[in-house]
This record gives sequence, structure tokens and C-alpha cells, in this order.
Amino acid sequence: MNYHIREAHKADMPQVLQLIVELAVFEKEPDAVEVTVEELESKGFGTAPDFHCFVAEIETKIIGMALVFTRFSTWKGRVLHLEDLIVSEHFRGYGIGTALLDEVVKYAAKLKVKRVSWEVLDWNTPAIDFYEAKGADVKRDWDVVHLDSNGIKNYLLKLDNA
Amino acid sequence: MNYHIREAHKADMPQVLQLIVELAVFEKEPDAVEVTVEELESKGFGTAPDFHCFVAEIETKIIGMALVFTRFSTWKGRVLHLEDLIVSEHFRGYGIGTALLDEVVKYAAKLKVKRVSWEVLDWNTPAIDFYEAKGADVKRDWDVVHLDSNGIKNYLLKLDNA
Repeated sequence: MNYHIREAHKADMPQVLQLIVELAVFEKEPDAVEVTVEELESKGFGTAPDFHCFVAEIETKIIGMALVFTRFSTWKGRVLHLEDLIVSEHFRGYGIGTALLDEVVKYAAKLKVKRVSWEVLDWNTPAIDFYEAKGADVKRDWDVVHLDSNGIKNYLLKLDNA
Repeated sequence: MNYHIREAHKADMPQVLQLIVELAVFEKEPDAVEVTVEELESKGFGTAPDFHCFVAEIETKIIGMALVFTRFSTWKGRVLHLEDLIVSEHFRGYGIGTALLDEVVKYAAKLKVKRVSWEVLDWNTPAIDFYEAKGADVKRDWDVVHLDSNGIKNYLLKLDNA
């Protein structure tokens, strides 16, 4: 499998969004993706971008991506967060996920951060096995919490009515 | 309990670090805090700060804090992440946690983000009950993953030896 890993360009964002949607379908939340190509293009490039993206390419087709940004840990200072690591279904099993994660960890080392963090679904055993084989610690006692846009709206309504 | 919520100043960071350490002890990781006052002061203020911090104050004593930053969701675009919400033990039960969370949600609305996200320990029942009462969704199927500084070092060593 003759793939190539490189930094993403703005012009890759339509294909990157396709991968994001593919992963959302796998994660049983097909309607969760509200982000647009325009948002990826405007937020990910230029001065002070919101994220940094690596892509895996076969000829001109993007078949994998890793999207990261720095965040601030009150324990470790600046750390790197891996928001998504995606390899399109038909291209799994060729080491492309490893090659993308290699780039992410090398990037973390370049930034001198003390941690790479991410999130995983507890039923996604292949992903968990993969991450643990790479030396990562899946913290089963730490859960993710979301207050979504409806939650924000209702929260503010209750404040107004208090 | 006559407290006051306001944005943090640089001069608050020594007391903010005390709260961070207090929470780490409660979370059974007393040695996990590597961040310093200098790091909080340099990363949290000035142009393009890494985080935004609210504090709860009684006279000149900081007895609570909420530390947030924006991060990029590939589903929702720019979202707000609540890294820590801390009320010092002796000051719990007076609504200070709610007052800090109110500020965070109002700040999220001001930034027009589509989500506030955070993380919680699955055995921290008082925190989970508090968050759920506020309308948040504790996603018990999503776990946090960390590759810590040793993990990063070992990962790179394996790459070098491959």
C-alpha cells in the first residue's frame, strides 16, 4: 500500500470532512457532524489556527487523517490533544493509523509537551487495543461530559428565570 | 457566604495553583501537578492566552476557580472546554460551584460555541449529580486516553529502533 503522510492543505478539507463523517457513522452518531468545509478551511489555516492536521494520501486521494491542537492541562501545562485519528475503512490494516500516530507523537515531541490526550469509545476494542499497544493509558475511570447547544440554551433560560 | 465571582488576574495564580493541588489530592493523584505559578502566569495572560480563568473570592482569599479554553471539535467546530471547576473543601455547599459554572456557560454563550465539554471521575458521584442536575450529559461510554511524557519518550525510542 503506497501511501504518503504529509501536513494537510486547505484544499484537502472536503476529503477530510468526508473522513469525519465516516467516523461519526461508525460511532453511531451519523447526524452529529455540524462542521462545514468552510469552517475547517477558515479555522485550521492562517495565523493562530485552531488545529493542525496530518493526512495520509494515496495518489491524490486522502484516506486517513489525524487532527490535533494544543490544550492547557492544569497538571502538565501545554499538552497536545488528538481530536481524531481516522483511516478510511477499506484502507485499514496497512499500518496507516500507526504512521499517522507516529507523526502526532513526533509533533508532540517537537512542541515539547508532556502529554498527548484523546478520547475513545469503550466498546471500540480494536482502537483500545491499538492505543494500548502503543503505550497509551486508557483511563476507564475518566468519563467525558458534554453540555450541548440545547443544554447551554436551557441553562441560560433557567438563569434568566431565577 | 459573601463571595464574589470575577475574572482571574495574574496575581491570583499562586492561590489558583493551591486549588489545583487540592483537587489533585482529592482525585488521588497528589504528585501529578507539574505546572508552576510562572507557567500559569505566562500562559494564561497577554495576547493569545492558553486559557481563561474565573475565580471566586471571599475578601482577598480565592476559594474557587473555573479554568476554560476553546478547543476544536470536528463535529461542532469551536467549543469551550472546562478544564477545572474547583471549590475549596471548606467552602462547598454555598452555591459557589454553581456560580462559577454559571459564568462558564455565559462565557460559552458569548463565544457562540455549540458545546461545553469537560471530564469527570466515574466515582465522583457528588460531581456527577451536580453536572447532571445542570443538564450536562455524562458520557459513560467515552473514556479519556493519555500518552504521558514517559509514553512519548518510549514511543520515540521504538521509532528510532524500527
